[in-house]
Amino acid sequence: MDIYEHFVQYYETDQMGIVHHSNFIRWMEEARVYFLDRMGFGYDWMEAEGIISPVVEVSCQYKQMVHFHGCVQIKVKIRTYNGVRLCLDYEMIEKESQKLCAAASSTHCFIDKKGKILMLQKACPELDEKFKDACVRGS
Amino acid sequence: MDIYEHFVQYYETDQMGIVHHSNFIRWMEEARVYFLDRMGFGYDWMEAEGIISPVVEVSCQYKQMVHFHGCVQIKVKIRTYNGVRLCLDYEMIEKESQKLCAAASSTHCFIDKKGKILMLQKACPELDEKFKDACVRGS
Amino acid sequence: MDIYEHFVQYYETDQMGIVHHSNFIRWMEEARVYFLDRMGFGYDWMEAEGIISPVVEVSCQYKQMVHFHGCVQIKVKIRTYNGVRLCLDYEMIEKESQKLCAAASSTHCFIDKKGKILMLQKACPELDEKFKDACVRGS
Amino acid sequence: MDIYEHFVQYYETDQMGIVHHSNFIRWMEEARVYFLDRMGFGYDWMEAEGIISPVVEVSCQYKQMVHFHGCVQIKVKIRTYNGVRLCLDYEMIEKESQKLCAAASSTHCFIDKKGKILMLQKACPELDEKFKDACVRGS
Repeated sequence: MDIYEHFVQYYETDQMGIVHHSNFIRWMEEARVYFLDRMGFGYDWMEAEGIISPVVEVSCQYKQMVHFHGCVQIKVKIRTYNGVRLCLDYEMIEKESQKLCAAASSTHCFIDKKGKILMLQKACPELDEKFKDACVRGS
Repeated sequence: MDIYEHFVQYYETDQMGIVHHSNFIRWMEEARVYFLDRMGFGYDWMEAEGIISPVVEVSCQYKQMVHFHGCVQIKVKIRTYNGVRLCLDYEMIEKESQKLCAAASSTHCFIDKKGKILMLQKACPELDEKFKDACVRGS
Repeated sequence: MDIYEHFVQYYETDQMGIVHHSNFIRWMEEARVYFLDRMGFGYDWMEAEGIISPVVEVSCQYKQMVHFHGCVQIKVKIRTYNGVRLCLDYEMIEKESQKLCAAASSTHCFIDKKGKILMLQKACPELDEKFKDACVRGS
Repeated sequence: MDIYEHFVQYYETDQMGIVHHSNFIRWMEEARVYFLDRMGFGYDWMEAEGIISPVVEVSCQYKQMVHFHGCVQIKVKIRTYNGVRLCLDYEMIEKESQKLCAAASSTHCFIDKKGKILMLQKACPELDEKFKDACVRGS
């Protein structure tokens, strides 16, 4: 699986001299968009299909402080998928030191433009198949 | 005219130990929304009327560093209004010291939901009147 | 226990037309600072004592979408405290509807300015006492 | 001169369905850091020299709305430099359409770690030379 790279910006730091913890939640989104793109289900495609995927839950464990001008590599894996909910795991590694700086996860459901919960098997069998497949393969 | 108060948040600081300059642009929006609310043209009203007011230009001069846990008082005044464009001035004052920390301005046009430029005199005479009035009165 | 109120800003929305989920993590910080202030351990005091309190872990469950111009009430409670780690729970309620919009928690350690882990009982018995007390009292 | 590319993130959008205007101010910083890096005066170097370069003024004219998933190309040029103040111009172009989406500028002074204003000719002749040179060459 491809690795997404985020270059740490100055405006992401706080007065502790490190990246503010809320930015990791945003980087998860960056990596997730990239990951789905690579799977062939990019944002444009999702939007054309009328599928929106809100965040139901996030969690993040901070392991190592991250500094400005660094680069963080993010690996995304599917942890679970049951047809209506997708749970992703994120491994964030500081590129230079190759140290784990955060381990995170996010859970998503799928809705249409009116906010109705979608079962992907019906609404988009192609995507459902791909997620199931990725679960079995372990990423 | 009422004064809007923004309490500085930790996540608004950067590694220089002060508020990151980009946040002042956001505070201008906070003060603008509050200012229009007080004039009787709150966001709900604008939305019900179908009027959107994009930012055409912003500028900000930074006079004094602002720190976490401080409070910034913001005064908004109409500088110019010509029926299609509204230019607002902002005075940002650090509450405790009463020092000017920034002087800023923003320019806005008015569009409908399809993106068409609106002349307020036609689209919303009530708002047009109020803006003209506030120009004359000097705030 | 006092309730912290956050007024939702326009710049906190995303193109789904709701508040972007990453902002809830920032609101937790706002409420936490307020909560510690009310306990008598404000940011100024912590800094004068040389105690920094990094975030070790966050999690947030999103229950209800939150919109611009709304107000979110946040209650903070101590879930656990063992002398080196403090775990806080957050209940976020949309003011008008009084619906729960998010349930969250954060875990913190305490370090000095050199990054050394502090045991609060030694480093700051006053704060240690207060946290233990608040645990027993259930808030 | 190299062109900096920023990939638009979902969390940068607002409920108008476009990038929130405050993010352009942050992209200017991204491009500025990149630009100084390419000139041989990267952040690490500046920090080792003890030179901090606060923002004194910013302005941005918004020409074209920018959407999620797009890419914005940013060119940075030195407009003026007088030994104590540096003024940069930014041209932001939406990559796919090659349309100008924003024209901006920022002004900076130079200070040491104690906040004292620096004259670069004395404090860092190397950097002073480079800025003067770039002014003459027109970028």
